[in-house]
Amino acid sequence: MSLQAIHNIPKICAQLGITDVVLSPGSRCAPLTIAFARHPGIQVRTVPDERAAAFIGLGLAQAQRRAVALVCTSGTAGLNYAPAVAEAYFQQIPLVIFTADRPPEWVDQLDGQTIRQADLYGAHAKGSFQFPADTSHTDAQWHAGRIVSEAIGLAEQFPAGPVQINVPLREPFYPKPGEELRFEAVKVTRELPGRPQLPATVLAELRDAIRSTSRVLLVAGQHPADTELLLALHRFAAAFQVPVVGDLIANLHLPAAPDYDQRLRPLGRQDVFMAVPEPGLKEALKPELLITFGQSLISKALKLYLRGARPAQHWHIQPAGPVADTFQSLTKVVRMEPMDFFAALTDTSGTADSMGASEGLGSISGAATAPTGSIPIITTPNHTAAQDATRVARPPAPAGTLRLVWPGSGGQLNDTEALAKAAYLKPWLAAENWATGFLQDFMRQPQQPFNEFTAIYHALQQLPDRTALHLANSMAVRYANILGVPAGRFVEVFANRGTSGIDGCTSTAVGTALAQPGRPVVLFTGDVAFFYDRNAFWHNYATPNLRVVLLNNHAGGIFRLIDGPRQQPELEDFFETRQPLTAANTARDFGLQYFAVSTFAELELALPVFFAPESGASLLEITTDSKTNAEFFEQYRAAVKSSFA
Amino acid sequence: MSLQAIHNIPKICAQLGITDVVLSPGSRCAPLTIAFARHPGIQVRTVPDERAAAFIGLGLAQAQRRAVALVCTSGTAGLNYAPAVAEAYFQQIPLVIFTADRPPEWVDQLDGQTIRQADLYGAHAKGSFQFPADTSHTDAQWHAGRIVSEAIGLAEQFPAGPVQINVPLREPFYPKPGEELRFEAVKVTRELPGRPQLPATVLAELRDAIRSTSRVLLVAGQHPADTELLLALHRFAAAFQVPVVGDLIANLHLPAAPDYDQRLRPLGRQDVFMAVPEPGLKEALKPELLITFGQSLISKALKLYLRGARPAQHWHIQPAGPVADTFQSLTKVVRMEPMDFFAALTDTSGTADSMGASEGLGSISGAATAPTGSIPIITTPNHTAAQDATRVARPPAPAGTLRLVWPGSGGQLNDTEALAKAAYLKPWLAAENWATGFLQDFMRQPQQPFNEFTAIYHALQQLPDRTALHLANSMAVRYANILGVPAGRFVEVFANRGTSGIDGCTSTAVGTALAQPGRPVVLFTGDVAFFYDRNAFWHNYATPNLRVVLLNNHAGGIFRLIDGPRQQPELEDFFETRQPLTAANTARDFGLQYFAVSTFAELELALPVFFAPESGASLLEITTDSKTNAEFFEQYRAAVKSSFA
Repeated sequence: MSLQAIHNIPKICAQLGITDVVLSPGSRCAPLTIAFARHPGIQVRTVPDERAAAFIGLGLAQAQRRAVALVCTSGTAGLNYAPAVAEAYFQQIPLVIFTADRPPEWVDQLDGQTIRQADLYGAHAKGSFQFPADTSHTDAQWHAGRIVSEAIGLAEQFPAGPVQINVPLREPFYPKPGEELRFEAVKVTRELPGRPQLPATVLAELRDAIRSTSRVLLVAGQHPADTELLLALHRFAAAFQVPVVGDLIANLHLPAAPDYDQRLRPLGRQDVFMAVPEPGLKEALKPELLITFGQSLISKALKLYLRGARPAQHWHIQPAGPVADTFQSLTKVVRMEPMDFFAALTDTSGTADSMGASEGLGSISGAATAPTGSIPIITTPNHTAAQDATRVARPPAPAGTLRLVWPGSGGQLNDTEALAKAAYLKPWLAAENWATGFLQDFMRQPQQPFNEFTAIYHALQQLPDRTALHLANSMAVRYANILGVPAGRFVEVFANRGTSGIDGCTSTAVGTALAQPGRPVVLFTGDVAFFYDRNAFWHNYATPNLRVVLLNNHAGGIFRLIDGPRQQPELEDFFETRQPLTAANTARDFGLQYFAVSTFAELELALPVFFAPESGASLLEITTDSKTNAEFFEQYRAAVKSSFA
Repeated sequence: MSLQAIHNIPKICAQLGITDVVLSPGSRCAPLTIAFARHPGIQVRTVPDERAAAFIGLGLAQAQRRAVALVCTSGTAGLNYAPAVAEAYFQQIPLVIFTADRPPEWVDQLDGQTIRQADLYGAHAKGSFQFPADTSHTDAQWHAGRIVSEAIGLAEQFPAGPVQINVPLREPFYPKPGEELRFEAVKVTRELPGRPQLPATVLAELRDAIRSTSRVLLVAGQHPADTELLLALHRFAAAFQVPVVGDLIANLHLPAAPDYDQRLRPLGRQDVFMAVPEPGLKEALKPELLITFGQSLISKALKLYLRGARPAQHWHIQPAGPVADTFQSLTKVVRMEPMDFFAALTDTSGTADSMGASEGLGSISGAATAPTGSIPIITTPNHTAAQDATRVARPPAPAGTLRLVWPGSGGQLNDTEALAKAAYLKPWLAAENWATGFLQDFMRQPQQPFNEFTAIYHALQQLPDRTALHLANSMAVRYANILGVPAGRFVEVFANRGTSGIDGCTSTAVGTALAQPGRPVVLFTGDVAFFYDRNAFWHNYATPNLRVVLLNNHAGGIFRLIDGPRQQPELEDFFETRQPLTAANTARDFGLQYFAVSTFAELELALPVFFAPESGASLLEITTDSKTNAEFFEQYRAAVKSSFA
C-alpha cells in the first residue's frame, strides 16, 4: 500500500491553515505520526493521555482561533477524546480528529485495539469521514484528498466544531530508513464564507421596533473576545440607549475603545443584583424586547429571571445553525453576524447591508484563512510570518470615526423615545452600581474567616494585564462571575461552558499557554477539577506563562453551597466526596513552582510573587475549609438580600 | 414530580442480583444517588473520575461475575465512561449504566452539563434505554420498571455487555429532611437463560470428524477462569489426544484437578516456540481441524501462524452472538457452551445432549442469578449470605467419576486413530517442553543487565497462591504471556484485551481488589499505563490486598521493541514519549507503601516483603533503561531463534 495519500494529509492541513497537531502516540497511527512530524509547516506536540490531549488541542484552537488537528491510534484512544469533542461541539471550536484504525475487514475479528470507529462521536461531531483503506486507484486518491479538505471546511464553517476522519491503515506503517517523504502541493478546496445580510427594509423594521420599544434589553452569551464586535455593540447601545448585560464569558468587560461612554459600558454584576428579592427592582428591569447573541449564560439568576419575565419578543442574532430557546420566549432568529447586525442598525447612511462585511471579520465564525480577532493574540514562535500576519492585533478604528454617531443616541431616537429608554436604562445602571459597591464593601470587610470566595476576589484584583483567564467548572467560574475582573484591565475569559464539565479545564488552559507563550495564562480551579485532570501536565512542553490558582477545600464544595444536598445525610460520602490530597506532589512531579497559603496574610504575600513573570509555571494552592466556605457564602447571600436599598 | 419510579430502581437492581454501584457524584443524578445510597441491599462506592469509576465497575463485575451498576450525572460525565464501556462490550462484561440527564425539552437549550445522551455509547453498548421523564401516568410507571428489568437482563444475556439507561430528571431532586424513601418490592422480569444443545446425530458427526482427523488442535481465547470448563476440556483432550493451547488470559493454566494427565495439560509457551524459524516444526504443528472457544489471543506469533496455516476446518464453539473469523478459516460455528460441547463429545453414555446442562454453569455467560464459577472467589464482606452461597468454591467432581473416561482415549479412538493423534501431539508437547526449559535457562543466566523482562520473570515466580493477576497493556501482558505463571499455583489472569487499551488497567485491578478483599490482587503494568490511570487510586476505599508492580522505563518502551518505529528518527519524541516521572509522589498521595528497585539484588530483597499480606496496598517500582530493555529483549529473540534443537 502506498502511503502517499497519508503523507498528503499534513500538506492539505497546512495549505488550509492548520499549524498545530496534538498527537497521542501509538502503533497504528504511525504513518500519520511520521507524516505530521516530518512536515515542516506543522508543529506536533505529543501528549500521552488522549483525554488531556484533546482538551489541550481545544485550548490551542480556542486561543488561536483556527482548527487544530488531533491524531490518535486505534481502539479506545479515540473514545478518550469524547469529552473534549462534546465540549468543542457545544462551544463551537474547530477540531479535526484523525483516528487511526484497522482496515474495515479486521473490525470485530478480535484483533487488538480494534473497536467500531466509524462515526465514533455520534451526535457530538459535525461530521465523520471514512478515509479510503486502499488508495491505489486514482479515484481513491482524489477521494482521500477531498475528504480532508471537506472535513477542515466543515470543522471551520459556522458554527465551528469537531469533525472526525477515521483512517484505516494496513501494514507496513514505516518508511524505509533514510526514505524521504514527499510533500507536494495538493489540490484543496477552500471555503470562502459569506456573511448573511438582511434587506434594508427588514433592517429598518427591526430598527423601528427597537426605537419604539421602551424596554429593550441586550444580553450576550458566551463569546470569544472580539474588540470590533465590542465597538459595534457599544455604538449600538449608545445609539439606542439599551442596557447590555453579559457574563464574564461573554467577554464584554474588555476595554474595547479608550473613550467609550462609561455610563453605557456592559453590565456584569447580574449574579448579585438578580439575587435581590425586590419585586420592585425585578419589575423595573423587565424587558419587552430581549435581544441576545452568543452561547450560554453562567448566571443562573439572570437566566431564571428572564424565563420568568417572558418578554413579548426575543430576537436571537446568529448567522446560521440551530438556535436555543433559552428563555422560552424566542420569537425571531436574525440570521446575521452579531457585529454586522449592530453595525447595520446604527448605520444611518442607508448602506447598512454592506457595512459590516467591509469592516471586519472579528469572530471565530469567520473565514478559515483569516481568523483575525482584533484582540492582542500572541503568536507562537514557530509559525510562518504569513500566518502571523493574519493574527496580529488590529488597532481599534480611530476614535474620530466613531464619534460621528457616538456617544449618545446618534440621531436614532426622538425625545420621547430617548426618555422612555432612559427610564428603563436607569434601574439597570443603578443595580449594577449598587452591586459593584456592595461587593467592594462586603469582600473587604475585616475579620473574615479565611475562605475561598474572598481568596478568589483578591486573586482577581491582581491579575496581570493581558491575562487569558481560564475559569474551571464548577465553583471557580461561578465565584468569578459574581465578582468580575477589575475594570480597565485586558483580561480575556475562557471557560468550558459548552458542556460545563470539570474533566478538561486544566488541559484547556495548558493549550492556551502553549498557543500564546508571551501572555499570562491564569487558571482558577477547584480541587475536584484539578485532580481529575492532572494529566494536563503530563507532557514535555514548558508553560512558563501558566499560573494555576487552586481552591482546595478537599471536596466537591459546591454541594455544600446548594440547598438540596447539604440537607441530606449523604452529603459528605456521596456528594462532596471528601478527598485528602494536596497539590504539593503534583507540583513536584511536573516542576511547577508551588505556593501554599491558608491565611489572607499568606495569600497577599504570595500573589505578587506568584504572578510575577519570572516565577515560571506556578501553582498557588489556597486551602480552605468547606464548612467555613459554606458559612461565609451564606453570609454573602444573606447580605445581598438585606443590603439593597 | 414523584421520584418513586427512581426509588424503585435500586430495588429492581437488588431483586435482580446487583449488589454494587460505582457512583460519580453530581447534582443532576442526586435522586439516583440518594436512592442507591439508602437502599440497604446495595453497596455504593463514590469515585470522582468517571473514566476510572467505570473501569473500577468493570473490575468489580469481572471479579464478581455479575452486573455492576454505574451512576453518573449529566453532561460529559457519561462520555468519560466510554473507554470502559467499549472494553466491557468486547470483553463481554455486564455493566448497567445510569446516566442522569436533563429532561428532553432542555436538551440543546444551552443549559449547563447538557449534551445529547440518548444512545451515548453507539455501537459499543448492547442497548440504550430512555427512562420516562414523567412517571405520573401508571403506564409510565410500568414502563419505567420494565426498562430497568429489561436492561439488566440484556446486560447479562450472553454475550454479556454494557447497557445504558438514560434517566431524565426534573427538579426538585431531594427528599425533604427526614423523609423516608419507600423500597417496596417491585415486579421484575427475570431471564432464565437456556443452554443450546445440538441433536445427538450432529454431535456424533462432530465426534467422528474429530476422531478421524489426525491433526486436531484446540486453541482457547480469553476466558474467565472456570475449573469445571477446565475439567471438561482436560477430559476432551485426553479422550481425543488433542493438543490444547491457550494464552495466559485463557486461564487454562489453573490447576483444575489434582490428578489430571500432566502430559496433556494445556500448552502456553507458544510465544516462544512459534518464534522459532524452523519450517519443519511449523509443518509438524499444522492443524487440519482447528477448534476454538473464547475471545482474543495475546500471542501474535500463534495468531499469524494459524492464519498462515489455513486449516481445512475451523470450528468455533460459542452459544450465541457474532463470531470472529480470527484465522480466516472459519467453517463451522457450534452453538453450544464450550463446556457442554466438550462434555457432550466425551460422553459415551448416549445422553450427550443433556449432560452438560446438569453438570454446571461455570461460565459468566450463564444464569444471572447463579453466576457461580467454581474458582475460589472470595466474597466481599457486605453481601448477604444468600448471595454468597451462589459464589463459593465448588469442589471438583470426585476423581473416581472422572477416571471412568480418563486418562487415555476413553474408548473414543481406535488404535490407528490413536497413533495418528499421538504423532500430531508429540511435536506440540516437545515444543512446549523445549520452550519451558529454554526460558528457565535464559532468564536465569548470570551477568544480565538489569532489565524489565527478567524482572517480571522473577516477580512472576513469587506470586502468592490464589492471586488475581492483572496484566496491563501493552508490554506487561506480552512479557507475562511469554513467561507464564509458575505451574501448580492458582493464579487467575485478567487483562483488558477486549480493546487492549492502556486507559483503565489500574482501575480494573482496583475493582477486583475491592470485590475480593481476601485475595491478593497483583497488577503488572508499565509507566505509560500507570500514570495514565493514576485516578484509579483517587477515592476513599482501602485496597490492602492490592500490589502494583510498575515497570518504569520512562517511556512507551514498546516502541523500541518493535522494528518499525525504532528505526525512525521520530522514535523518542513521537513514539516513546519519554517522561521523567517516578511513582514516588503518586504512592505518597494515595498512601501506597512504596518499594523502588533498580538492581536484581534489590528486587530479590523487595519481592517477599512486597508480596507479604501485612504490607498492605503497595507499589513496587522497577526502574529500568529503555535501551537496555530493548537490547536484552533482542538477545532473547536471537536466542529463541538459535537455540531450538
